[in-house]
Amino acid sequence: MYVNEFIKDLYRVKFHDERDQVLRLDMNESPEGLPADFVEEVKRKITPEFLATYPQKNRLVRQVSLHCGLQTDQITITCGSDEAMRLAFQCFGEQGRTVVTVTPTFELYGVYAAMFGMKHVAVDYKEDFTLPVDRLLEAIDKDTGIVVLLNPNSPIGAVYTEAEACAIIEKAQAAGALVIIDEAYHYFYSPTFMPLLSKYENVLLLRTFSKLCAIAGLRVGYAAGNAKLIEYLEKSEATFNVNNVGLLFAEEILKRPDLMEQQRVSEAKGRKWLAQQLRDHGYEVLALEGNFLLFRPRKHSADVVASLKEQGVWIRDYRSGILAGYLRVSTGNIESMRTFWNAFSIVDQEGK
Amino acid sequence: MYVNEFIKDLYRVKFHDERDQVLRLDMNESPEGLPADFVEEVKRKITPEFLATYPQKNRLVRQVSLHCGLQTDQITITCGSDEAMRLAFQCFGEQGRTVVTVTPTFELYGVYAAMFGMKHVAVDYKEDFTLPVDRLLEAIDKDTGIVVLLNPNSPIGAVYTEAEACAIIEKAQAAGALVIIDEAYHYFYSPTFMPLLSKYENVLLLRTFSKLCAIAGLRVGYAAGNAKLIEYLEKSEATFNVNNVGLLFAEEILKRPDLMEQQRVSEAKGRKWLAQQLRDHGYEVLALEGNFLLFRPRKHSADVVASLKEQGVWIRDYRSGILAGYLRVSTGNIESMRTFWNAFSIVDQEGK
Repeated sequence: MYVNEFIKDLYRVKFHDERDQVLRLDMNESPEGLPADFVEEVKRKITPEFLATYPQKNRLVRQVSLHCGLQTDQITITCGSDEAMRLAFQCFGEQGRTVVTVTPTFELYGVYAAMFGMKHVAVDYKEDFTLPVDRLLEAIDKDTGIVVLLNPNSPIGAVYTEAEACAIIEKAQAAGALVIIDEAYHYFYSPTFMPLLSKYENVLLLRTFSKLCAIAGLRVGYAAGNAKLIEYLEKSEATFNVNNVGLLFAEEILKRPDLMEQQRVSEAKGRKWLAQQLRDHGYEVLALEGNFLLFRPRKHSADVVASLKEQGVWIRDYRSGILAGYLRVSTGNIESMRTFWNAFSIVDQEGK
Repeated sequence: MYVNEFIKDLYRVKFHDERDQVLRLDMNESPEGLPADFVEEVKRKITPEFLATYPQKNRLVRQVSLHCGLQTDQITITCGSDEAMRLAFQCFGEQGRTVVTVTPTFELYGVYAAMFGMKHVAVDYKEDFTLPVDRLLEAIDKDTGIVVLLNPNSPIGAVYTEAEACAIIEKAQAAGALVIIDEAYHYFYSPTFMPLLSKYENVLLLRTFSKLCAIAGLRVGYAAGNAKLIEYLEKSEATFNVNNVGLLFAEEILKRPDLMEQQRVSEAKGRKWLAQQLRDHGYEVLALEGNFLLFRPRKHSADVVASLKEQGVWIRDYRSGILAGYLRVSTGNIESMRTFWNAFSIVDQEGK
């Protein structure tokens, strides 16, 4: 039987852990989630008939288009921004061409490059942890199909200037390539490249409700771009690609800018507190523009992760590349950060 | 900029209607949904932290595998069975080969055939509304990539015998083709081809929680098959393809076979009642094996649909092919059917 050759040998990481009883600081989710009273209020709208009805995205499309200052035909709602990525590759990722990203970045882009028979050109960060914009520009050539700018990038929260983004988009345009600007960490970092959508036709901008909006479990994201690109993405979507509880929560969140601001301030305070705490204790912290901090522990990073895991505090370590030996801790409110610090500061003591 | 040639000109039907205030008998959802006390009980488990956590499918995979009498590696959970279809085409649908189905059937199969550059061979039903099994077998040849058996089929609820299914699977196997057995309407019709999975390696069986299980809004389905096929589907999935509220409801539903039986009995009674009502009033009813009835109204079918829509009762009409002039009404409990009948019997009166 025929099997797609690019899928056959694709390597995928699967997550099989039960994480509901732990302090989740390993995947850049919101550790605390939305305020409980808000969640209860929205839950009241979930009735048996609501659950039984196929989802309808139009209301959220209208809200998101207003939120972004775009027309409704410039937005499509997707099952997390993961789905928007896949749709972009499926529509615009020509087999045999290259996908240009920096490295490290969100790993799923490399996976989709392989899945769609493209060649991943991964441009190393500079040694000072800044973005290799010059080399990224050099890597874009006539063979390039897709360029990805995750802004702020993850796991190193460096950002592109508007001039850099424009130079990259223009070089991609000349090569006939799409640029995906992934703003998953928007809100933690307020500048946006959304206005560039009116200037360039080869750009898709992705956002998610998983990070600041704290509904990673509900799988809601969106892609914004010129109407023609969005039309192609929508042609490739399943008829009902996003669930209606996710749509409902996203609608209610967008109605509450005060709540989004409250979430933003709460995380910013926690992040600032933890960065200070670490610095006060002699750690060099890469605290850039996302809901996470990077630093090197005194002990072996994998051992620190394992010890913390025993105590129900989950963080992530890196074992290769520029971040080898580093830890990444997702940031949340001060209380969550204090819990982390209390566990970590004991685990990482010299001589213990 | 490159655009996938198969997506560029693909025609897609989009649903933009607000259907939350109407009696939804147009898309074979459950008109009533799950019992309210059950829904409230499950909702209690939805906390801010739960919503903020990336979904975890393992618990449901275990439950579904037990439910189906299979191993856990023979199951993958998908965003409705829509996603399972797309994954099957993406993994096993070789460009240029044929997709063999009967017609009419679920339209999305034809869409995916076009999206993946395959040729749709649509075999007409016999004039007596029975399945054209002989001609379906004839249509399977060395060019065939995928054969689809929706069983019971929709919108005409005819079913395949096990001997017919085996003959089709064996012919497909000889051609190197995959057979998708779509059991979306299982439970309304209790026989299943699940046991054939241990006999044949070229079969994927799809199920959904959207129909009897009444959570169409939550987008949960699954594919079952030999572990190798399931592995390929999983390689192609997004990291988090199904939302955790959907997973939660599916888990709780599977824990309650009594509740599933109650839903089944309630729909069966409603369907029987409406079929009888229609027959008593001189309509010839195609009441086969799904949660829907087909019949010809006295008036023009499109006019009947429009008149009922004005009264908040939504059903579907067919305008071409063997079903031209027919109406399809999704079936639910007696109360829902009575509401439909009261509106319909006035709309379709002669001389009015």
